[in-house]
Amino acid sequence: MAPARFKDKVVLDTSLFVNPDVRRSFGETPTEALEGFLFLAAQVPILEFYMPPSVFGELLNFIEPSKVSGDLLVYLHQKPPKRHELTTPAFLLYELIEDIRERINKGLRVAEKAVRSAEVKGMDEAIQELRRKYREALREGIIDSKEDVDLILLAKELDALLVTADRGAIKWAEKLGIKWLLPEKFKDYLMSSIKKAAHIKDLLG
Amino acid sequence: MAPARFKDKVVLDTSLFVNPDVRRSFGETPTEALEGFLFLAAQVPILEFYMPPSVFGELLNFIEPSKVSGDLLVYLHQKPPKRHELTTPAFLLYELIEDIRERINKGLRVAEKAVRSAEVKGMDEAIQELRRKYREALREGIIDSKEDVDLILLAKELDALLVTADRGAIKWAEKLGIKWLLPEKFKDYLMSSIKKAAHIKDLLG
Repeated sequence: MAPARFKDKVVLDTSLFVNPDVRRSFGETPTEALEGFLFLAAQVPILEFYMPPSVFGELLNFIEPSKVSGDLLVYLHQKPPKRHELTTPAFLLYELIEDIRERINKGLRVAEKAVRSAEVKGMDEAIQELRRKYREALREGIIDSKEDVDLILLAKELDALLVTADRGAIKWAEKLGIKWLLPEKFKDYLMSSIKKAAHIKDLLG
Repeated sequence: MAPARFKDKVVLDTSLFVNPDVRRSFGETPTEALEGFLFLAAQVPILEFYMPPSVFGELLNFIEPSKVSGDLLVYLHQKPPKRHELTTPAFLLYELIEDIRERINKGLRVAEKAVRSAEVKGMDEAIQELRRKYREALREGIIDSKEDVDLILLAKELDALLVTADRGAIKWAEKLGIKWLLPEKFKDYLMSSIKKAAHIKDLLG
């Protein structure tokens, strides 16, 4: 095991295992992808992997826990962020509130348009379109769940690399100076880290 | 002038001068109310009054600047909060995001109802009701402008008493441990402070 000072920390989102395009490099199903990841994780003593319990709770909807080995408990640490100790810079609050204000106004315009279109399109189609466009206007690209906040804050607390495809989370990572990586690149990152660990071992004799 | 250690700080919202029910104790019009306040403020050496420039900008929509004395510059300090130095506890972020998430869902239900009601009520009435209910669901009781954030953060930075009627601002003041006072009580607060100042002067000989 490499000395603690060589250990980099990584915080994982669920997309790595849940998104079909991304997980393919680790396994066919979410359960297999998680197992595939754990197999590699065990070979990288220079990295430590974390997932907030709230995010792990989401992952549980996709995997079969009985088929996942006990390595999970050792190689993927479930740790919540220190919600009552951490702080965030105040300017973030301004940006969040301005962003939400604009989205709320946009949501009203979407709703008004839906009311006006009901006569022409019929009620059912108008409501379908309303739901889609409203979601687009109000939810996309924004941090909108406590799971998202957990990811961001845990990465901040641990000074970790955040592996996520969530556009809202990436936007906040950029604001807060958090390293981030798209899940598509994560397999390469792991493989290179395994090589780097071997190299360090050689150097240390 | 009392020594600096006796000075309590007060952050003022616009409602004190703009809300007809509240300003009456200071003056008939917003301009007169502001003048009335400045007249009293000049007699309270133990208090310092602040207003964020963004909030003062809102106040300018209601007053006639040419009729307000230069005392304004001396007795009502226009100071922005230190937006890039201040921090807020992370748990606030969770509460804000959960609150907004619920409101966004509520907004969609309001919008769907409006689409369904258009057939019965007619388009114009459905849209009128949508606007009112949407605003209620998404804006009331929430901090939703940078002016609101300025008020809260300036009060926090100065450890000041926040005088506001805004329900969203009061909710956040409660979370952040900021003293607050309803504008209706502010005249009494000023009059008692004038008495206290005289009392301190007596004690100090």
